[in-house]
Amino acid sequence: MSDFPVTDRTRVRRLPDRGKYDADTVHRIIDAVFVSHVGFTIDERPFVIPVLHARDGDRLLLHGASSSRLLRHIAAGNPLCVCITAIDGLVLAKTAFNQSMNYRSVVIFGQGALIDDAEEKLRALAILTNRLVPGQWDHVRHPNPQELKATSIVAVPITEASAKVRSGPPKDDAEDQGFPAWAGVVPITQLLGAPVPAAYTDVAATVPDHIRAVVASHAAPPPGA
Amino acid sequence: MSDFPVTDRTRVRRLPDRGKYDADTVHRIIDAVFVSHVGFTIDERPFVIPVLHARDGDRLLLHGASSSRLLRHIAAGNPLCVCITAIDGLVLAKTAFNQSMNYRSVVIFGQGALIDDAEEKLRALAILTNRLVPGQWDHVRHPNPQELKATSIVAVPITEASAKVRSGPPKDDAEDQGFPAWAGVVPITQLLGAPVPAAYTDVAATVPDHIRAVVASHAAPPPGA
Repeated sequence: MSDFPVTDRTRVRRLPDRGKYDADTVHRIIDAVFVSHVGFTIDERPFVIPVLHARDGDRLLLHGASSSRLLRHIAAGNPLCVCITAIDGLVLAKTAFNQSMNYRSVVIFGQGALIDDAEEKLRALAILTNRLVPGQWDHVRHPNPQELKATSIVAVPITEASAKVRSGPPKDDAEDQGFPAWAGVVPITQLLGAPVPAAYTDVAATVPDHIRAVVASHAAPPPGA
Repeated sequence: MSDFPVTDRTRVRRLPDRGKYDADTVHRIIDAVFVSHVGFTIDERPFVIPVLHARDGDRLLLHGASSSRLLRHIAAGNPLCVCITAIDGLVLAKTAFNQSMNYRSVVIFGQGALIDDAEEKLRALAILTNRLVPGQWDHVRHPNPQELKATSIVAVPITEASAKVRSGPPKDDAEDQGFPAWAGVVPITQLLGAPVPAAYTDVAATVPDHIRAVVASHAAPPPGA
């Protein structure tokens, strides 16, 4: 896939070898995380809010309530900075200075546009619903006009974007490697647990296959894997 | 514990029953998450960066490289918005409209101050190091003057803060509860995996107790728990 143009804002300056500018890396990180941290400015003051997202090709879909004052600000085309972060591990070094974390993060600069067209909005809602569990859209009652009106979806083009990734073991200098401390990585993963049925669900006994599948895909690896 | 004063910026307007303003709730969420998303404004443009944090009583410590341009901006006392989010579950309803996520989030408005005093800085570094693994500071080589200089720690008072929490089952309206879809929650937890020693560690065979303890504390619950 093609690389994003590196701009003054997206260039990774500190530890530049951690910077990645290809769409594939950026898209994979976006797809691995459920929630964006969306930053914007009102009256010269910074705001950051967590927003459920999904990716639709080369744009990010952000989901919110039409009544939300902050979402209306995002939808109005004001400048945004979206940060998406996955945490992958504790990096434990022999020196305090080299303690770190493994992570993957994406930053997107741009602006949002409200999705107004009814058909496009339904399609975007399907993508967001399927982001939670692939296939979920085919199982649930679709929105009625009142619900559609109460929901806003904002699309942000993923064009001015970059990723930053740290992975692998700690990096202690040669002269510290004999220091008598344990050094290594404690991996961190996101684990989906056993589904808990709502009291009112009448099909509690049978968790459908598409929900079983997503739980299995995020389950802990077997010991020793 | 006392409540934070509710300001125009920290009041939870959408779904106000999700808003929490007590220090205990805010502190617990901060302590459960490794990374803050820190928002600020440069030339009227929003920026958000992920930063490793730890809590020192009623202030948030943010850790970064002294050479980082963005960290210097944070350290300079410019207005900040810090957002800290934990993801707890997929909320699967019978209607697309009621799909949601369980989460805990904190937002802090304020400004940072660089910790300059050498003794206070060492104490703050100990807190940040122990945030990864409690007790880790006692096992690693402490920073030398050059490393201390290369590290910046910024303290942000946790005073203008609020939390927003969604937990529990989906909420479908009575007329939707008979719809033939599975409804319930798929819990999400952060799982710490088996420690992976660095190739150069000479004590690879014995993962120390303090590291074993943190892995155990974040391990997956037994099936059925």
